[in-house]
Amino acid sequence: MPRADGRAPDQLRPVKITRGFCDATPGSVLYESGRTRVFVTASIEERVPPWMQGRGQGWLTAEYSMLPGSTPDRKARASSTNRVDGRTYEIQRLVGRALRSVLDPQALGERTIWVDCDVLQADGGTRTASINGAYLAVVDALKKHKFSRPLARWPLKEPVGAVSVGIAAGKALLDLDYSEDKDAAVDMNVVMTASGKFIEVQGTGESRPFEGDELAAMLSLASKGIETILARAKAELAG
Amino acid sequence: MPRADGRAPDQLRPVKITRGFCDATPGSVLYESGRTRVFVTASIEERVPPWMQGRGQGWLTAEYSMLPGSTPDRKARASSTNRVDGRTYEIQRLVGRALRSVLDPQALGERTIWVDCDVLQADGGTRTASINGAYLAVVDALKKHKFSRPLARWPLKEPVGAVSVGIAAGKALLDLDYSEDKDAAVDMNVVMTASGKFIEVQGTGESRPFEGDELAAMLSLASKGIETILARAKAELAG
Amino acid sequence: MPRADGRAPDQLRPVKITRGFCDATPGSVLYESGRTRVFVTASIEERVPPWMQGRGQGWLTAEYSMLPGSTPDRKARASSTNRVDGRTYEIQRLVGRALRSVLDPQALGERTIWVDCDVLQADGGTRTASINGAYLAVVDALKKHKFSRPLARWPLKEPVGAVSVGIAAGKALLDLDYSEDKDAAVDMNVVMTASGKFIEVQGTGESRPFEGDELAAMLSLASKGIETILARAKAELAG
Amino acid sequence: MPRADGRAPDQLRPVKITRGFCDATPGSVLYESGRTRVFVTASIEERVPPWMQGRGQGWLTAEYSMLPGSTPDRKARASSTNRVDGRTYEIQRLVGRALRSVLDPQALGERTIWVDCDVLQADGGTRTASINGAYLAVVDALKKHKFSRPLARWPLKEPVGAVSVGIAAGKALLDLDYSEDKDAAVDMNVVMTASGKFIEVQGTGESRPFEGDELAAMLSLASKGIETILARAKAELAG
Amino acid sequence: MPRADGRAPDQLRPVKITRGFCDATPGSVLYESGRTRVFVTASIEERVPPWMQGRGQGWLTAEYSMLPGSTPDRKARASSTNRVDGRTYEIQRLVGRALRSVLDPQALGERTIWVDCDVLQADGGTRTASINGAYLAVVDALKKHKFSRPLARWPLKEPVGAVSVGIAAGKALLDLDYSEDKDAAVDMNVVMTASGKFIEVQGTGESRPFEGDELAAMLSLASKGIETILARAKAELAG
Amino acid sequence: MPRADGRAPDQLRPVKITRGFCDATPGSVLYESGRTRVFVTASIEERVPPWMQGRGQGWLTAEYSMLPGSTPDRKARASSTNRVDGRTYEIQRLVGRALRSVLDPQALGERTIWVDCDVLQADGGTRTASINGAYLAVVDALKKHKFSRPLARWPLKEPVGAVSVGIAAGKALLDLDYSEDKDAAVDMNVVMTASGKFIEVQGTGESRPFEGDELAAMLSLASKGIETILARAKAELAG
Repeated sequence: MPRADGRAPDQLRPVKITRGFCDATPGSVLYESGRTRVFVTASIEERVPPWMQGRGQGWLTAEYSMLPGSTPDRKARASSTNRVDGRTYEIQRLVGRALRSVLDPQALGERTIWVDCDVLQADGGTRTASINGAYLAVVDALKKHKFSRPLARWPLKEPVGAVSVGIAAGKALLDLDYSEDKDAAVDMNVVMTASGKFIEVQGTGESRPFEGDELAAMLSLASKGIETILARAKAELAG
Repeated sequence: MPRADGRAPDQLRPVKITRGFCDATPGSVLYESGRTRVFVTASIEERVPPWMQGRGQGWLTAEYSMLPGSTPDRKARASSTNRVDGRTYEIQRLVGRALRSVLDPQALGERTIWVDCDVLQADGGTRTASINGAYLAVVDALKKHKFSRPLARWPLKEPVGAVSVGIAAGKALLDLDYSEDKDAAVDMNVVMTASGKFIEVQGTGESRPFEGDELAAMLSLASKGIETILARAKAELAG
Repeated sequence: MPRADGRAPDQLRPVKITRGFCDATPGSVLYESGRTRVFVTASIEERVPPWMQGRGQGWLTAEYSMLPGSTPDRKARASSTNRVDGRTYEIQRLVGRALRSVLDPQALGERTIWVDCDVLQADGGTRTASINGAYLAVVDALKKHKFSRPLARWPLKEPVGAVSVGIAAGKALLDLDYSEDKDAAVDMNVVMTASGKFIEVQGTGESRPFEGDELAAMLSLASKGIETILARAKAELAG
Repeated sequence: MPRADGRAPDQLRPVKITRGFCDATPGSVLYESGRTRVFVTASIEERVPPWMQGRGQGWLTAEYSMLPGSTPDRKARASSTNRVDGRTYEIQRLVGRALRSVLDPQALGERTIWVDCDVLQADGGTRTASINGAYLAVVDALKKHKFSRPLARWPLKEPVGAVSVGIAAGKALLDLDYSEDKDAAVDMNVVMTASGKFIEVQGTGESRPFEGDELAAMLSLASKGIETILARAKAELAG
Repeated sequence: MPRADGRAPDQLRPVKITRGFCDATPGSVLYESGRTRVFVTASIEERVPPWMQGRGQGWLTAEYSMLPGSTPDRKARASSTNRVDGRTYEIQRLVGRALRSVLDPQALGERTIWVDCDVLQADGGTRTASINGAYLAVVDALKKHKFSRPLARWPLKEPVGAVSVGIAAGKALLDLDYSEDKDAAVDMNVVMTASGKFIEVQGTGESRPFEGDELAAMLSLASKGIETILARAKAELAG
Repeated sequence: MPRADGRAPDQLRPVKITRGFCDATPGSVLYESGRTRVFVTASIEERVPPWMQGRGQGWLTAEYSMLPGSTPDRKARASSTNRVDGRTYEIQRLVGRALRSVLDPQALGERTIWVDCDVLQADGGTRTASINGAYLAVVDALKKHKFSRPLARWPLKEPVGAVSVGIAAGKALLDLDYSEDKDAAVDMNVVMTASGKFIEVQGTGESRPFEGDELAAMLSLASKGIETILARAKAELAG
């Protein structure tokens, strides 16, 4: 059974990257993966939270939000409901961990990197698009921010990328869009480094448990997908 | 004394309008006025709030938010502080009133128009840009939304536009950017219809009170500015 | 068409001022304008908020609230709903700006003036009554507070007063009560100094846009009304 | 040792009752006990909360709040702190229970009485003044409210009154003002009916435990004090 | 009429005390009174809240919560409703006052004792069980905590205990379980010291007012009950 | 390098299960895994949330909380901070998904199972202990609850269990306690069914990314650990 948009099972959606989309913050990326669009900004504050002061180490924190108009059924703002929902917390913790895993806090010194991911349009894979956009925004922020004292050394250990995989109609698929994701039996998000190591593996049997070989198939697809995504990021930064 | 960006006192910043910026909602406009960028979506729900049911009338409600990366000093999310600030309330009430003033609620019938204004980059005039973008987004939403029953008649009575004016260095200026706005002695927002009537006049003496003739000069500038903005909107919609 | 209470279009409601209504705070005024009654207190704290420390300047902040029994339909407390509504924010920002516009922050020194306006009975014009009561309460607070170090000089630059005007049944009216206000086509609040200058002009077309000459007529009425109000305040303080 | 204001140990502070202080609600009392001033309103809503519907019984609920200017150290509003403090909850539960204890819910029918107690000035005994004011406000509300259907019978079983007592400097004292209350070893609030029965007895050893005979002495003082308070209320209502 | 569980009117429910139930905190008691079970922990922090610093005195604070599964009708968590209910505030204030009344703050020095009472199963008398469990937990915490500097002297002045009493079917009863409590005409909680003095007396006429001799009968029952409870605690600590 | 408590790398901590720990809810389990103790209750409500009504399907929802005394550094209650932290949300979503994955919603019919997990003592693995305790509590709740209409068929498809694994000092370890967990390079939680399939796989590189073979080693350990846990649960239920 072909995919709705004609992609092969191991094919990513087209990625479009607009760096410097705005200029209030040094890092500002509009990251598009198919119809999913995330606006990611990264800014640097020359201090760390009180509980980290005096250790000579930096910190990175991420927030994630879906704009009300990002889905056909308008999503109420967290500020209206007075409640950040659990899914949002889960995602912003994931994005923060992913980026911190490649951050060298000593090299950053006592500074905080703020990453903000705001979903303009949601069509599946917003958390992985957020991570991919955030990596680029952080690179740009580190390059453009006017540091009070120069950085000791480059504070990112290596590139990081993410992709979703899943099992739908008995088949492992890469980079599910919303129509695929909502019916997938199994849903998995994978974060990896350019050196091919895992940072996060989060798989959930949505409508049924899954077998070990299904897990292996998904991990393999994810690994190839992230390789492609990181090649795209590298080209973009080299460009 | 010339303006920082070389504009004449009665000159607007360049406006850029991108309709259909996203497609999850029927109305979706990226409205840019100079460096100020607001992403406005409009969607239509086929019911009204409980307190309005049974009257055969529609409703329009607006929300406004600045994304954290829209300013050089990162703005904390309302959901993090658990507090929508007073300025935000003021602006979303203003945007809602402005659009409702040209809405014919009987023609809309028992439906709600949701307008969401999210500031991607803030450089002064975000509330007036929100109104200008919202007018276009609402027009598009009304055109593209698939109504369960057809509209009785077109529910907008006439176009509406907004602009800021102020007094800086003793001179009345149109469409202040942030660098002008923060030092302006007087700050005023004006909302008008295409027929040249006032919907809102909100003037504040920031650092000093102002005279009646200063008020008159600002109203005159605003009137001309809104005329230009509405001509631009008309051309856009005709295009 | 005569007004419900027989007033002329340019006639204020009777004002009653009770200074020293309570004595826990140095400024304490029961301000009545017709049936509208606002209890305003002003107190002085010998420090400023953290973000203002070290500048040698003072600050003034205002809060506004309607008691639950101030209207026939009981108004829920903000503490019950866990939400300060937008209108309340708008009003307390207006009251704060109005008073700060005549405050000399250097003369006050590093102190905060707290103004609290609690509406005991609401019959239209509660925000303007709050400003008028607040001016008197602040004067009394400055006179009666036992300063740790004497004031450098009197920290109010001049008196400030406020009134509402509107268009109802095609006619400009001064100082609308609730029955007039709810049906008014246009509603406007004006804050002015004793020297006849504007501090705030906030006009809204409630049920229809308004013309430039209607705006002029309202401003003229407001100007005369505030003159009378400030004469009344002067007499009270002289008394 | 005489009391600060020269009262005898068993002497109440002067009580001043202003009924109909405002007229937006049918019951509206300014209740003053010495320098303590509480503004109490009572209004009647012709329905009960969802969980009580269909039982043919009424309900009474009370809220209590101290205005920011009621104490020399400005008290932050619950809406600013986003937290109703424990003391406030305790008091509004006490006021509600006291009034409900003399309410005949069948006679009231499916209606809610809302009692709001707002302290304008606090000088000790605000919770007992709230109960005393609330009794009068509820009587007036029941008399003046225009019921959709007439009351079956008078829904108050008998008058209710309250007073504070305490032990200070080894002596039992009636009706403590703030200066006495803050140094009292024991503090007790008593609510009684006109028939001399107890509704609430709440005694706390603040700085030391207390003996059984001290408890007896306080109860005896309270009983006499409430008798006087209820005689005063009766005269007021007869007037 | 005999009691549901066959107890005599002046008979306590069986008490079971498990000290050291957990070991993360130095004081940890599972206190059971019949089917009522409260898990109480006490821990000591080597500092006091900011407003108490520099006085050389300690502080004790208590929190109380009912777990959702403690009652047949699941009780929503305060964190889900975003609201600590009034009853909870009342109880935690009571528990805190009870323990502070026997605490010598100078002997404790600048430290805070945190008492946490979590009801695992509620069958009436949870607040008095909390106090009884808290006394034991605080004793253990003071014994086991590794103080940075040794205590000047033992900081508890004497033991404290609590019990509920009530009037049901015209009869005074000791230590009501839930089935008795919900139908009791009068409900009273009493806190006393080992020396037979009162710390708290809180009686409420739930369905009717009560007479002075009923009050006396309840106080007498309570006094005997607390004596037994404190003998049990003494034996436990001696054991 | 041996483990702190002498366990083999693939050895679980001792498990202790106390069913019927309380009796207010039909399912009530004290689940202990080494020093980690979680009190889990399950109760059944004979209706579903509004958004699920009319589909003939049931629902299961889980909440998780750590009691303040569960850790040596007292953990503030969510109700005190007015904020459920992200970790808590993440865990309660995980517990809910795990149990729902083996629930047959048609067999349950329009009923809600409420699962509450309250950590009495935290020593690592509280989320997996919660899942293991919850499975037992749900079984008991389904057996003991008095259904208004009998269940169509047994609504659990098969048993479910969970365990944590990790990489510490270069070695894969099963069931980490807190001292191991805080220093682990990689941390992973696995949820599986009795039939050996995966429900959740959540691995995070805490201090470094991890290799594919490390992932495989952890999955293998987890699989054996869960087999043992489910055998223990089976014996318990058979007992």
